[in-house]
Amino acid sequence: MISLDDVRAAARRLRDRIHRTPVVTCRSFDEATGYSVFFKCENLQRAGSFKIRGALNKLLTLSEIERQRGVAAFSSGNHAQGVALAARTVGTSAVIVMPTDAARLKLAATRGYGAEVVFYDRQTEDREAIARRLAGESGRLLVPPYDDPAIISGQGTVALELFEDVPVLDALLTPVGGGGLMAGCSTVAKGLDPATRVFGVEAEAANDTWLSLQKGERVAIPPPSTIADGIRNLSPGELTFPILQQNLEGILLVSDEEIMEALRFLLFRAKLLVEPTGAVAAAALLAGKLPLGRGARVGVVLSGGNVDPGTLAGVIREASPLPQRGRGLR
Amino acid sequence: MISLDDVRAAARRLRDRIHRTPVVTCRSFDEATGYSVFFKCENLQRAGSFKIRGALNKLLTLSEIERQRGVAAFSSGNHAQGVALAARTVGTSAVIVMPTDAARLKLAATRGYGAEVVFYDRQTEDREAIARRLAGESGRLLVPPYDDPAIISGQGTVALELFEDVPVLDALLTPVGGGGLMAGCSTVAKGLDPATRVFGVEAEAANDTWLSLQKGERVAIPPPSTIADGIRNLSPGELTFPILQQNLEGILLVSDEEIMEALRFLLFRAKLLVEPTGAVAAAALLAGKLPLGRGARVGVVLSGGNVDPGTLAGVIREASPLPQRGRGLR
Repeated sequence: MISLDDVRAAARRLRDRIHRTPVVTCRSFDEATGYSVFFKCENLQRAGSFKIRGALNKLLTLSEIERQRGVAAFSSGNHAQGVALAARTVGTSAVIVMPTDAARLKLAATRGYGAEVVFYDRQTEDREAIARRLAGESGRLLVPPYDDPAIISGQGTVALELFEDVPVLDALLTPVGGGGLMAGCSTVAKGLDPATRVFGVEAEAANDTWLSLQKGERVAIPPPSTIADGIRNLSPGELTFPILQQNLEGILLVSDEEIMEALRFLLFRAKLLVEPTGAVAAAALLAGKLPLGRGARVGVVLSGGNVDPGTLAGVIREASPLPQRGRGLR
Repeated sequence: MISLDDVRAAARRLRDRIHRTPVVTCRSFDEATGYSVFFKCENLQRAGSFKIRGALNKLLTLSEIERQRGVAAFSSGNHAQGVALAARTVGTSAVIVMPTDAARLKLAATRGYGAEVVFYDRQTEDREAIARRLAGESGRLLVPPYDDPAIISGQGTVALELFEDVPVLDALLTPVGGGGLMAGCSTVAKGLDPATRVFGVEAEAANDTWLSLQKGERVAIPPPSTIADGIRNLSPGELTFPILQQNLEGILLVSDEEIMEALRFLLFRAKLLVEPTGAVAAAALLAGKLPLGRGARVGVVLSGGNVDPGTLAGVIREASPLPQRGRGLR
């Protein structure tokens, strides 16, 4: 368990090392949903997602010996970039274990931050075992993606900033993958105002936390297929799950079609590029899944914006016949 | 001519009726250009561009009789939406003259704000004459897109907010179409800090202000072909041009390819959807056209974000082979 004070300490540590991301409102989104929605724009965060918060908070607590040995992580996505940038920021080295078929943009970004990338075959090798072996051999500290108090506290600073800008919220929604973001944010929401109702959002196909909350214990699912690649976890974390159990009103589930619709709405109406995972909480609102009355004040974490051009082009193409018409007008 | 005090009065009038848009920084953009760049995000403004500022400032000064008669405007783009939303905000009616082939999204948005749309044929009819006749018959006030002191003062509030957030800038860049945005913003920049160097940016094909500054008088060009549809003006304004002559260091010119490259950079790196016109100032920086040394602090107005899906899909498609690779990874 972590406390509000842990998150406050993380915020002091992170200050001036990360962006204080803006909170944006969009009247057409409010009109479409009937809520008063405040978007916390972690898609505008350094390295493109909230992940830098937890990673940097963790790395800022390294001892001098640990810093000299460096860190390691396994991730094909935003955690890779977060750890790579955090390592550069604190002046240590990072080795990131990524699948051979990782998106080239993410690979390039991770290397761009100065990290060394070690590949593994997604079909035949176990990335966690590789990273552990690698960490063991070299003495590097393994930076876990969510199941770590320093990571959870760092992610919680998202909600701390949001509540500083918007002190009263009836509800707070974030995506839920391993649960690090939500464990931190829900600790802040409940700590600052216990009346805040906190909802996690998962993709229908990746409903491990929804199932786990139903059953009252951590449940594992087979590898899910969803466009929301940041929350394809098989089960909630050991540390994060009890926190979610305690703080969450429940989990809302959204389909890939609803996620893509939300991505397009945020792009063309709010002018924000959000990755599919980052759009799930907005999708829950647009699809009418939040069980609150009209006019409620809702905080929504747009968790990241790292989407590759091919995926984005695909999402835009599926958007009604408008692209066809538009092309002729160019 | 307008003064800094006119802009300050406009800011007081507009307060709480429009968004105070965020100023966003992007380290990868800074690394790519060598400057310290502050983006003023008018793409996140109400109705998707800065145009609401001038239109609403104008409409807030209507007499009760004028308000009862309503307003009219001709525009196929952001000015239409700005006037339509401004009219709804002050409780008057608006008629907007648009071409029969206007983009459906812009048409829908204009009607969505409650305006009546009157069509004209771009090939055979003169929209300005139609709007004038319409205004004459109905007694509606014609709201010009730029050549009006209240419009210019309203647009100047963009720079006023930017300088409140970032007090010292070595340079300020905005797109230049009719010159309303730049006339207002340059008045603010020179009024607050005469050392600020102010540069307008035009598309190479729509270089009417560049030519006019060269010649020392307003020059008209044939209808230009550029992807930056918001600055396809044929000549600078009668009121705006002398202001630009007085305040501008010069005009920087960018190609359509440079504009699309900047749009993609802002989208995939800064996570901001900017329309082609809104990306021209960023394009000038990325293309190395600003004649200032490394490290300069540069304010850049991202003027709008209204781009239709077809145009955006086209711009993404032209972005190197990455979309192809990405598609397979989805």
